[in-house]
Amino acid sequence: MSLVYPSHDHSASIVFGGNPLDRMSERRDDDEFIASLREDRRGRTLLFASDLLVTPAPHGDPRFSRAEAEALGADWGEAIFLGTDEAGPLFAAPIADPESEAYVCHNLRALGVAGVIDHALMGAVAQARSLIGWHARHRFCANCGHATTVGQAGMRRDCPNCEAHHFPRTDPVAIMLAIDAERERCLLGRQRRFPPGTYSCLAGFMEPGETIEAAVRREIWEESGIRCNRVAYHASQPWPFPANLMIGCFAEAVTFDIDPRDLELEDVRWFDRADIGPMVERTHPTHAAPPSVAIAHHLLRAYAKHGAPVIQSAAAVAA
Amino acid sequence: MSLVYPSHDHSASIVFGGNPLDRMSERRDDDEFIASLREDRRGRTLLFASDLLVTPAPHGDPRFSRAEAEALGADWGEAIFLGTDEAGPLFAAPIADPESEAYVCHNLRALGVAGVIDHALMGAVAQARSLIGWHARHRFCANCGHATTVGQAGMRRDCPNCEAHHFPRTDPVAIMLAIDAERERCLLGRQRRFPPGTYSCLAGFMEPGETIEAAVRREIWEESGIRCNRVAYHASQPWPFPANLMIGCFAEAVTFDIDPRDLELEDVRWFDRADIGPMVERTHPTHAAPPSVAIAHHLLRAYAKHGAPVIQSAAAVAA
Repeated sequence: MSLVYPSHDHSASIVFGGNPLDRMSERRDDDEFIASLREDRRGRTLLFASDLLVTPAPHGDPRFSRAEAEALGADWGEAIFLGTDEAGPLFAAPIADPESEAYVCHNLRALGVAGVIDHALMGAVAQARSLIGWHARHRFCANCGHATTVGQAGMRRDCPNCEAHHFPRTDPVAIMLAIDAERERCLLGRQRRFPPGTYSCLAGFMEPGETIEAAVRREIWEESGIRCNRVAYHASQPWPFPANLMIGCFAEAVTFDIDPRDLELEDVRWFDRADIGPMVERTHPTHAAPPSVAIAHHLLRAYAKHGAPVIQSAAAVAA
Repeated sequence: MSLVYPSHDHSASIVFGGNPLDRMSERRDDDEFIASLREDRRGRTLLFASDLLVTPAPHGDPRFSRAEAEALGADWGEAIFLGTDEAGPLFAAPIADPESEAYVCHNLRALGVAGVIDHALMGAVAQARSLIGWHARHRFCANCGHATTVGQAGMRRDCPNCEAHHFPRTDPVAIMLAIDAERERCLLGRQRRFPPGTYSCLAGFMEPGETIEAAVRREIWEESGIRCNRVAYHASQPWPFPANLMIGCFAEAVTFDIDPRDLELEDVRWFDRADIGPMVERTHPTHAAPPSVAIAHHLLRAYAKHGAPVIQSAAAVAA
């Protein structure tokens, strides 16, 4: 029985959200077992040149055999065990030379937009990209400053000096659609870097000591001046740029005058629900929503389809 | 209008989940403004001796005036701006001497169990404890090994060598109650360190590249061998030991034979729903649930009250 794609799991259907690997976390400390997986002839490795995924041809399969990976200069000392599936064990490793003509390098977000890699494999690629990037930026012990080494088959870095164990970080981000139920409209913002006419959901990193609901309300308030009451969780998405967990919610707006407190956004405004469908489908004459690689797309699609009842779901079960 | 305690927000009512501070994140870079808050006569500071909260007497108010904090040896160079409320600005700072007789030190979890500190203040205390601990364990740059300095009023550490910015980490943890809807029972586990007879929800750190739903299913499967389909988010809780975000969910069990894959738990078993109410209320003759400081308590309380419909809530809005 698969661990993914059950009914009612919005998260599993979003890009980077379908990852069927069995991570076998309880075996990561078993060096002999991990070594046997590395020797497994079915074993494959995802290779990264810095933060870019490597493929043998523009749209080739990114899963390299051991011999292929070695020929491309895979750094086995930094290899990470991702998990296994019916095809065998899957690893990730960095390669030293990002300028070779022997392969093609891909930005993962662009790959997600293009949709050329199998949905389940994209989940494993996101997992790999987060871990590769984390290792690259955490080569020293934050506790004592000493150089660290790879532990637990790539799921830890260990300090030989102060003996601290460091685990990969995952940064929770609240991303949300505030809804004015009575006037059938929702609140969207525009970052300066967006293509012309594109608006998306508001979002921001969760802070220490916050609940998901508090982070949703705070971000909306900071970026728009709107206050919200009810918050309903919808779906989550791993977002490996570099290591975020996007937590997608709907929120019930209870004030309506826009007066941003910070200047993060170029513009923030209400959009009628009737405009959202065409914006999501990219048939709107003047405005657009983000592509389906973004969880914002899915929040907007659900709102266009269902309207204000999306903010009721979390209240179905009373305290 | 307050940002917290709206209707239907389970998270805001749990210990550490009610934090009414205005964090004023857009002003953290404004050194002059932060300095003016430090000079504010209404300003108060939470003091920590290592990971322990300091109070002037066993159950005294932990908010010290500037003069009181200085008399106790507060390290202003490491002070963190937490936010403001109607009483004025609130800071947190470590103190050098953890062995003084001038104050009393408290473990935060024990304080949460005791319930002696105001609910809203406990939220700020949790925020402070996460940040104080993070600074203590991140004095060096993970990227280059150089000593770092405090930035952004305590919400960042900066590397003067490689210019990396480091933000506090928040580690998402999935905690969940798997439910056998047909037989009206739920799955609980026992850690060796628990008091005799105590069982709680299964839980585990989320991993890179996982959705919340995938983490819930993986943890249940690893710790019990049970497979789950539907997952419903219920509530979240900041858990500052050291910096977790507990994400509380219900899950619909679709297999029922217990066969743990790892050996993390001393025991894992099904409990009839009829037993859960008395376990939560501590009136059960042989078993007990965790105290209300733990989000597990609230998942169990909701299940005892509502039964299997708790796993329906996230499905109220279709994809």
